[in-house]
Amino acid sequence: MTVQVKVCVDAMGGDCEPEAVLEGIHKALQKDNDLSVLVAGDKEHIESFCAQHERASALFTTQSIAMDEHPAQAVREKRDSSIVQGCKAVKESRAQGFFSAGSTGAVMAAATLNIGRIKTVKRPFLAAIIQTLDQHNICLCDLGANADVRPENIVVQARAASVYSHLTLGIENPSVALLSNGTEDTKGSEMAQSYFKALSQAQGINFKGNCEGNDILLNSYDVIVTDGFTGNVALKSIEGSVKFIAKALMDGAKHSVTAAAGALLIKKTFKQIASELSGDKHGGAVLLGCKAPVVIGHGATSPEAVMHGTLACAHAIRTQLSEKIAEAMAVQDK
Amino acid sequence: MTVQVKVCVDAMGGDCEPEAVLEGIHKALQKDNDLSVLVAGDKEHIESFCAQHERASALFTTQSIAMDEHPAQAVREKRDSSIVQGCKAVKESRAQGFFSAGSTGAVMAAATLNIGRIKTVKRPFLAAIIQTLDQHNICLCDLGANADVRPENIVVQARAASVYSHLTLGIENPSVALLSNGTEDTKGSEMAQSYFKALSQAQGINFKGNCEGNDILLNSYDVIVTDGFTGNVALKSIEGSVKFIAKALMDGAKHSVTAAAGALLIKKTFKQIASELSGDKHGGAVLLGCKAPVVIGHGATSPEAVMHGTLACAHAIRTQLSEKIAEAMAVQDK
Repeated sequence: MTVQVKVCVDAMGGDCEPEAVLEGIHKALQKDNDLSVLVAGDKEHIESFCAQHERASALFTTQSIAMDEHPAQAVREKRDSSIVQGCKAVKESRAQGFFSAGSTGAVMAAATLNIGRIKTVKRPFLAAIIQTLDQHNICLCDLGANADVRPENIVVQARAASVYSHLTLGIENPSVALLSNGTEDTKGSEMAQSYFKALSQAQGINFKGNCEGNDILLNSYDVIVTDGFTGNVALKSIEGSVKFIAKALMDGAKHSVTAAAGALLIKKTFKQIASELSGDKHGGAVLLGCKAPVVIGHGATSPEAVMHGTLACAHAIRTQLSEKIAEAMAVQDK
Repeated sequence: MTVQVKVCVDAMGGDCEPEAVLEGIHKALQKDNDLSVLVAGDKEHIESFCAQHERASALFTTQSIAMDEHPAQAVREKRDSSIVQGCKAVKESRAQGFFSAGSTGAVMAAATLNIGRIKTVKRPFLAAIIQTLDQHNICLCDLGANADVRPENIVVQARAASVYSHLTLGIENPSVALLSNGTEDTKGSEMAQSYFKALSQAQGINFKGNCEGNDILLNSYDVIVTDGFTGNVALKSIEGSVKFIAKALMDGAKHSVTAAAGALLIKKTFKQIASELSGDKHGGAVLLGCKAPVVIGHGATSPEAVMHGTLACAHAIRTQLSEKIAEAMAVQDK
């Protein structure tokens, strides 16, 4: 038997219909008997679901934040939104972690404001686990939370992501690389060079040096750190490549019978690759540095992705992710 | 009949055997009757080739710069290398442009030093044309020449790349986007925001605003500009994705007969996609901002890539790429 945990799930978030989110919650509850869920959303959408599920309780809200709203402004103005109320529920211990497939910016703002930061983490940041070659998993961060990052915050990122990699994937002493424009120690923009220096001097990080964009999917570091600007460009470039290749293969299939047959036959393999790269398997991105686990799914998400996200949040609670990150910071800062 | 041009080609550059480069030159000479080539390399490798080809002349050199040498140091010390002597030949008008599949850093250093910069281009930069969806071509720069770029130099990049896009692809008034971590005007690191401001205020650039990593392959801007650090990360992330997907498809094929059959059938389509993405079709990357065209192929290149690179250089000479860039700078700076 695992430890009983309660996750708050945003039923209104994302481009996803509430029904799809509820289906995902249903799947998560089936998978994990020690999980209960606090469902945040409009009464009309969630009431009967919660009545039908013993381990689901309702947190009725009246507003929702759309994907294209200005995050900070929406969080300020929509006090009764599922995202804001969900984070407040975590703060007030009505749940131990939060999952939303909604606006990344809004979840980050609401979580930082309402759940609060771990003392030594000045700026919570986004990390995701991506499956690369040979079933190797890599943790990439920051994916876009903070476009400008100071050297001392890259060190915080590296430490927190190492804890996350260890707790989620069981990797002992994860290797850490810094994303740069070349592998040599002298490579990098002035900012990246300042990150390199800080990481080299920091205690308790298994820092291996610079890596390049192709190392994200091809090589075998456990953690790759960068600022949120560069990390976002890298992640989106990878996502764009997958979509591009899928489309190009389909277009090629239109003009050739052999290619068409081939495309059909590899469809399953390709879907699997795309799903592994999307991070859905690990529930999406996790916001590291808050006082409780916060997992953010992709906007256009599926019931499976909601299930993975909810279970990932439960796992983070059970492994005491936030507490362990706080401990790692405290030890390192002595 | 086209204008007669003479391109200097580095026979010793890259991971490529001189024989493969010579085969590429042979192909280029066959394709273009008004092209002659000055072949730079070791006597033993190039002498008989030049004797056998009427439009090939020899520039004997005794040194070559390896891919893993420190670029600036190698250029300083190896005065009789094919890269340094090739650039000197262009300076002394023994050829009108230079193609090398050798070390990008060494070619950049040797070209800047020996061919020289266009007066208003403080830092020559790397651009490449990548074929994206629907046969659309996009010019991406800087790919890694300058990790740190000032706002005024991003404007120079945008102008020079617009000229390149126009001359190479025939695009009138190319649309320009800035690579960022979101499409909204307010997105970007402090540095990227300073680029946005400079591009918005500059005259004569068809600036469309911010774009994201996935816009490189999926969307329809004509030119995407960024600093060499971010551009390198984006390009390598794309290259890594293509390799990753190719490998994952093959691995999937190992475990399934249907996937194996599928992979075999799409092999040709996939190879085409990879070749389009590699930029080989357009000869590799072009160093914009020097007084004569300089084209740099990939390290591990094929005779076809050498042919494309040589022909791309010839095309740049014929369209007066360097002169037109200098003109565009002069007009804009009034």
